[in-house]
Amino acid sequence: MYKYAELYFNPLAFDATIQEGGDLMPKGFKVSAIETGARYKKRLDLGLIKADKFCGGAAVFTRNICRAAPILWSVDKVDTGSAILVNAGQANAQTGDKGLYHCESLAETLAPLLGLKTHEVLLASTGVIGVPLNIEAITSALDALVKKLGDKGFCDFASAIMTTDTKRKAYTAIGTLPNGTAYQVNACAKGSGMIAPNMGTMLAFILTDLKITSEALTALLEEVTLETFNRITVDGDTSTNDSVFIMSSGAVDTNIIDDPNSKEALSFKGVLYELMMRLALDIVADAEGGTKVVRILVQGATTAQEADSIARTIANSNLVKTAFYGEDPNWGRILAAMGRSGAFFHPIQVSLDLDAVPWVRNGLDNGKDEEAKKVLKKDYYTLKVTLTNGYGERSIWTSDLSLDYVKINSSYKS
Amino acid sequence: MYKYAELYFNPLAFDATIQEGGDLMPKGFKVSAIETGARYKKRLDLGLIKADKFCGGAAVFTRNICRAAPILWSVDKVDTGSAILVNAGQANAQTGDKGLYHCESLAETLAPLLGLKTHEVLLASTGVIGVPLNIEAITSALDALVKKLGDKGFCDFASAIMTTDTKRKAYTAIGTLPNGTAYQVNACAKGSGMIAPNMGTMLAFILTDLKITSEALTALLEEVTLETFNRITVDGDTSTNDSVFIMSSGAVDTNIIDDPNSKEALSFKGVLYELMMRLALDIVADAEGGTKVVRILVQGATTAQEADSIARTIANSNLVKTAFYGEDPNWGRILAAMGRSGAFFHPIQVSLDLDAVPWVRNGLDNGKDEEAKKVLKKDYYTLKVTLTNGYGERSIWTSDLSLDYVKINSSYKS
Repeated sequence: MYKYAELYFNPLAFDATIQEGGDLMPKGFKVSAIETGARYKKRLDLGLIKADKFCGGAAVFTRNICRAAPILWSVDKVDTGSAILVNAGQANAQTGDKGLYHCESLAETLAPLLGLKTHEVLLASTGVIGVPLNIEAITSALDALVKKLGDKGFCDFASAIMTTDTKRKAYTAIGTLPNGTAYQVNACAKGSGMIAPNMGTMLAFILTDLKITSEALTALLEEVTLETFNRITVDGDTSTNDSVFIMSSGAVDTNIIDDPNSKEALSFKGVLYELMMRLALDIVADAEGGTKVVRILVQGATTAQEADSIARTIANSNLVKTAFYGEDPNWGRILAAMGRSGAFFHPIQVSLDLDAVPWVRNGLDNGKDEEAKKVLKKDYYTLKVTLTNGYGERSIWTSDLSLDYVKINSSYKS
Repeated sequence: MYKYAELYFNPLAFDATIQEGGDLMPKGFKVSAIETGARYKKRLDLGLIKADKFCGGAAVFTRNICRAAPILWSVDKVDTGSAILVNAGQANAQTGDKGLYHCESLAETLAPLLGLKTHEVLLASTGVIGVPLNIEAITSALDALVKKLGDKGFCDFASAIMTTDTKRKAYTAIGTLPNGTAYQVNACAKGSGMIAPNMGTMLAFILTDLKITSEALTALLEEVTLETFNRITVDGDTSTNDSVFIMSSGAVDTNIIDDPNSKEALSFKGVLYELMMRLALDIVADAEGGTKVVRILVQGATTAQEADSIARTIANSNLVKTAFYGEDPNWGRILAAMGRSGAFFHPIQVSLDLDAVPWVRNGLDNGKDEEAKKVLKKDYYTLKVTLTNGYGERSIWTSDLSLDYVKINSSYKS
């Protein structure tokens, strides 16, 4: 049972077992990871994934105007790229022409080692913004990285992409489609700060041996991203490097899936939702300095968009988040955040529930602070906001704001 | 010389000397303050201002949907109210009918003691949201509060309205209008958390003996508020209780000022700007846990509104604010915040200056981290963002995000 399973609801039926970790790649993929010392010492910091035969690919990227060089490199290659090189340490963002040149140079060096064309190499980076890649360290490691490629090693790859993460975030799903096809999906992600994904989040990589086209993958990835990665926030800061890549090898011998609304695609989508939601919640759980995972569920807003505004404003309020951290039943801060969200509601028609505790009724204290404190002591719970305006509903998942968040972030670069 | 004078520019000419503190009220006003023990012990927590004869009044209030009861009470009385009662400890926000009843009850008890009608009593509150007023403690203190009314005691009043503030924020200006009229303005404010004023900020009270009408005061107050209190942010959380009151006694014997564009009004407006900006910057300087006052100046945006979005997004970014706290020259976080602001700009045409240090040029590191670190060690400085899109310009003043902010706010209520 997944730890945070009660914090979300997957509306899609699917047949799959999902396990944490799992080292074996889906059929048709190889993986490797290595230490380059480009920034971190004695730590895996460069990873590579390679499809033996490419079937389909898609990706979503940050909507931040300041997109990193590897995103500018990869954005037009996701439906042809069959290898992904990822470094941790330097984000290669705001590095200008040099950053783009580094991308080209890496792809040109790596492609022949893999028997690929330059435009078949995708790139992703994470780390400090504004600092050029340690191109020598990375380039000189490529040979060994390629030599290490194998069927196993997914967990090492998931470790190699970490920066301030304290835990690896990786899952393997073994599934069966309605038509009887057995398949595998591996998914991993990194991220714990600068998290308020808008389109993609941090870095995530999803690999399957299903025969599914780029078009179908694009449709599924975009829809599920909106419901999962785009609904979490740690600090409201959208990164320059957010990217989610999905790739299929087509190594499973069956009909190709090209209609995102087919029974097979929907079953696969259910697995995708499950994997992406788990990775998203794992990121919230591993939030820099975070001690809580809180679902903010808003129901009864005028529109889903207004529900989203209210939920996000609560989820990003420093005063609410410090109260979560302090396990302080200070519901007035929640109302104050709602009131500046830009969404309309009647302050006297607000109910708040903390899990099953009826905390606030008709906008007023309901005398339940002691029960509320018990919920606030848990390491995950749901804050439900009920309004009486309409049918707008939205969930956002957030962390608390702790002393450690400030400690970690007051000296990340220097 | 005011400590933060180099962080702003007052475009209006005026003739006045301004001093910190100053206990004597402007002519025609009386003041008092008292300890009620309603929340804090051994601390002034209830204040009263009374105009002997009312000339004009105006106020700006929070735009938060969840307005506190004293705002609902005062909003239609600002051009008739000649007394202001302020309590610190309970915000009387989200207190429903009881909160409104408490307002009525306080005004009905206080008015006859002052020889006023109920609708001539204005109310303001600050403290915890969702908690009813300690009405017995406050009501039973009113007699003594009225008996203490005197020409002196402005500093005690300014102290009585403090909550998490660590410093009193009060100024006295002695001015001369272009027509030769001598006058006085006293101004004080409170605030250090839940600061992202939208319309008014926290609580501020401005009193003058000038003969100036409610209409003129309204026009001046609204314009100057937009340029001062509405341009500061501590934590992006707009309070339910933000209020700025201004009142004139008309005790100075001269022509009445009713045209906000007259020479006299503009000279007075210059003093108002100076007082309100100082109070605003004092609030930022006294930000909960804050150690820095930083002006974010954006120039060259497409419009002033886009400059505002960029400046506010930087000013409210936790990652930027923790870097300010850590004196960490992590300019990538500034670019990342700008990129998610919703405003358009070219990432490769951004310049950043920290005071006189040319930190970033053409969106790239300019090799000045050592010089930048020296500025970051100062307790106040200007971060200038220069774009090449147009003539949009805006300044926002902000604090850093420190360990103490989290400490203070993780246990405010309980």
